[in-house]
Amino acid sequence: MTTMTATRTPYDELAHISRSASLLGGTAGLLGWDQEVMMPPGGLEYRSLQLAQLARLQHQTFTDERVGDLLAECEADAGVTDDPDSATAVNVRELRRDYDRQTRLPAELVEEEAKLASLGQHIWQEARRKSDFTTFRPLLEKIVDLMRRKAECYGWPDDGEAWDALAEDYEPGCTAKQIEEVFTPLRDRLRTLLQGLMGSSTKPPNTFNELPLDLGRQRRFVRGIAEAIGFDFDRGRLDISTHPFCSGSHCNDVRLTTRFHECNVNDALGSTMHEAGHGIYEQGLLTEHVGTPMGSAVSLGIHESQSRMWENQVGRSHAFWKWAHPKLREFFGSAANGVDLETAYGGANIVTPGFIRVEADEATYNMHIMIRFELERAILRGDLEVGDIPEVWNAKYRDYLGIDVPDDARGCLQDIHWSMAAMGYFPTYTLGNLYCAQFFETAMDQIPGLEAQFERGKFGDLKQWLNENIHAHGRRYRAADLCEHVTGKPLSADPLMRHLEGKLRPLYGL
Amino acid sequence: MTTMTATRTPYDELAHISRSASLLGGTAGLLGWDQEVMMPPGGLEYRSLQLAQLARLQHQTFTDERVGDLLAECEADAGVTDDPDSATAVNVRELRRDYDRQTRLPAELVEEEAKLASLGQHIWQEARRKSDFTTFRPLLEKIVDLMRRKAECYGWPDDGEAWDALAEDYEPGCTAKQIEEVFTPLRDRLRTLLQGLMGSSTKPPNTFNELPLDLGRQRRFVRGIAEAIGFDFDRGRLDISTHPFCSGSHCNDVRLTTRFHECNVNDALGSTMHEAGHGIYEQGLLTEHVGTPMGSAVSLGIHESQSRMWENQVGRSHAFWKWAHPKLREFFGSAANGVDLETAYGGANIVTPGFIRVEADEATYNMHIMIRFELERAILRGDLEVGDIPEVWNAKYRDYLGIDVPDDARGCLQDIHWSMAAMGYFPTYTLGNLYCAQFFETAMDQIPGLEAQFERGKFGDLKQWLNENIHAHGRRYRAADLCEHVTGKPLSADPLMRHLEGKLRPLYGL
Repeated sequence: MTTMTATRTPYDELAHISRSASLLGGTAGLLGWDQEVMMPPGGLEYRSLQLAQLARLQHQTFTDERVGDLLAECEADAGVTDDPDSATAVNVRELRRDYDRQTRLPAELVEEEAKLASLGQHIWQEARRKSDFTTFRPLLEKIVDLMRRKAECYGWPDDGEAWDALAEDYEPGCTAKQIEEVFTPLRDRLRTLLQGLMGSSTKPPNTFNELPLDLGRQRRFVRGIAEAIGFDFDRGRLDISTHPFCSGSHCNDVRLTTRFHECNVNDALGSTMHEAGHGIYEQGLLTEHVGTPMGSAVSLGIHESQSRMWENQVGRSHAFWKWAHPKLREFFGSAANGVDLETAYGGANIVTPGFIRVEADEATYNMHIMIRFELERAILRGDLEVGDIPEVWNAKYRDYLGIDVPDDARGCLQDIHWSMAAMGYFPTYTLGNLYCAQFFETAMDQIPGLEAQFERGKFGDLKQWLNENIHAHGRRYRAADLCEHVTGKPLSADPLMRHLEGKLRPLYGL
Repeated sequence: MTTMTATRTPYDELAHISRSASLLGGTAGLLGWDQEVMMPPGGLEYRSLQLAQLARLQHQTFTDERVGDLLAECEADAGVTDDPDSATAVNVRELRRDYDRQTRLPAELVEEEAKLASLGQHIWQEARRKSDFTTFRPLLEKIVDLMRRKAECYGWPDDGEAWDALAEDYEPGCTAKQIEEVFTPLRDRLRTLLQGLMGSSTKPPNTFNELPLDLGRQRRFVRGIAEAIGFDFDRGRLDISTHPFCSGSHCNDVRLTTRFHECNVNDALGSTMHEAGHGIYEQGLLTEHVGTPMGSAVSLGIHESQSRMWENQVGRSHAFWKWAHPKLREFFGSAANGVDLETAYGGANIVTPGFIRVEADEATYNMHIMIRFELERAILRGDLEVGDIPEVWNAKYRDYLGIDVPDDARGCLQDIHWSMAAMGYFPTYTLGNLYCAQFFETAMDQIPGLEAQFERGKFGDLKQWLNENIHAHGRRYRAADLCEHVTGKPLSADPLMRHLEGKLRPLYGL
């Protein structure tokens, strides 16, 4: 770096450092992908050392004092920052944000967090195995204490709360108060909808979800769908892993994974379309901005809105199945004989309140999230003791989903997040569903004949709309601002509820 | 690093830096593997940036002034260096060697080399496509000039020559004079053997090399053989690439590749056993020494001796085929009907003088290498002008192999090495064959009933012998010393010639 400083502007040097740090992050991304998908078991020990080394180097690169000086120089340079929506101004603004956050945490706290998170996962696994919250409780109390101290380091505005400071890591600019305003009507309307659905004597057939289908054919089928909706296989791959994910190094090398079960092609299809949606977002970031905030995703919530777009708005629509349904015969032959269009579409949209978040359907999923959000917010505020989590958890499941949690393993011990010291993360899943529905309503308004396109297997107009309206902006707008910019309205529960009610009530004969 | 310096000995700190640099190298190794085996085409541009960044970080880590200070402190510490064969003394000796070499090259020369090598490969590819040496000549002259300057920077002893200084990068401690002493009798005896074989009216049938066999079955077959000879799939993988190679991050994560042709399972088998041999060496390095010279391979020649051990000494032996031949029926069914034991064994051992090194058989291969060695040595000495390469090349092919090179593409333009500024590299291939034959003779002496074990598919004793006598030493001995240590004799052409003559003469009815 130093040898070229003389001929570079401060902005160029800053962007160079950003790209260097991001290059290390991309290398770590590739190693993480390899670990889940390719690495033989013997590689584990040194892989954690490799990843720790890359994380350290990335942190060093980005928190160097020189970055602080460059930021100050750039901020004072009107040519760089005068137009707040310009790429240079956005990059300086966002790098300043990242730099301040990264330098605000003392090294001891970062180290303590890494240790607690590592120990936490270990103890949580044991506790879940024994289905005994009490053995996890002392460690979770330590984690909550650490989370409060971490939030103090970050700080928050007077009208905010500690939860906001933590959520900023995942959903910049988002506050618990804003979330509450959208989640409360969502919860009440969802409860009403679910009561209606569960009370109905009509429901879609489940045949499609119990159909044994050849795994090799399933693989070709879901790959074909990922390609059809616009995932670019010249700039990405699709492999298999225990838990599906989207990773990779940068917008031109995006790695997706999915998984297969002999008797549930719907699971593989949903996972593939979900991860392909994340991948299409990553591939839609502009190459010219790679390694800078302008070439990065807005937030986890917006990322999730893109995965849910293809998984739910497209992949569980009647129009999609009108096109995809004949493909079942094409790929699986007579094995798919029993599945007509309504069986396929219905099977993709069954609603069943259950205990486990990751197995939940499109409608009940959000209830799982809201319960977690309410709990972690109360804990951080001091309104709830860690020891009382199981009782409150179970009461909320009875209230929101009408089911009785049988044990901690299927209750408050099911998720890894808190054990990893990730608080403020959960709501991004439901924010994703909300943004997704609101974006999709706007796309439907702005692209004539979108459903008719789906019926013909044409998804390019929707993808291009997402590319232009969402992906190309990188981190130019905060999630809430992007939503207003794209849809003309603040985030609301209405589009998601219209989507769910409009689809599910007819399927359940209401 | 700095935070722990106070509590560490200089040796511990030095070893820590060695491991850090090696960890970065291992990450680069994984990225290189991914590039050849997994990466989508879009990833190429950023992959080169990632690799360049890792190379720069590795170089910085290892050439830091602190390393020089630590080396001096360690060298002055009798507890560390008193026993020259101890792990600590070996590590200090070898790290000193590496450090001195790495700090001896001026940055400008390293940069010039990288540029010339990159340009060289481009121009060489074009020249080979047009089969026109004259378009490559000016660049090769520049490369030779650079190689001379590089050798000057490294320096060499009074009784040596520039070639030695370059070869040191690949085969530490090896000199052109030593090579000449072994290569000259090898060349003369090989020429006599080849003339005999080519003059014979008897030769092995070629049926086995023209047999169409299902690619999926070929894949399972060669994987099974790699497993049988001792490659540990819990600490490694086998995949497919255009050019087979062995790579990975460290001894517990070794990545092999092979390739398949419908009509030549022998090629896939040979490539797989060859790369598995490299892999077994890497897996045989001791985990406790990972990231230090004691946990690293001796030289390219010794590495090649391990790949050739399994490819040639085992994989082309009658004993091996006595065990493997029935497997052809097991894996390929009636498709392997025409192949009896002698057809399989004979097909694996056909000798055909040809133009292309990488397609050469076990016997003629060494002639290709010796021709290249003689030429590059003469060029570096100034005894041969670059412009005269094609003429001398072709004359030597006529003299050593009895064939007339039809054009430059099939002549002096066939190899990439010189265009990459790799001079002093070629002989390591034949050194590998020589070391391999000499090691194997010793193993045959020391392990009773080795051939009978092969006939029963038992390869564990040979692997363990290699583990103990070669792999476990890391870089404790130079190649020549290791040879004496293991076999009790200096390197000689005799074992390789005994092996080739003993096998090939009977096959050709001599």
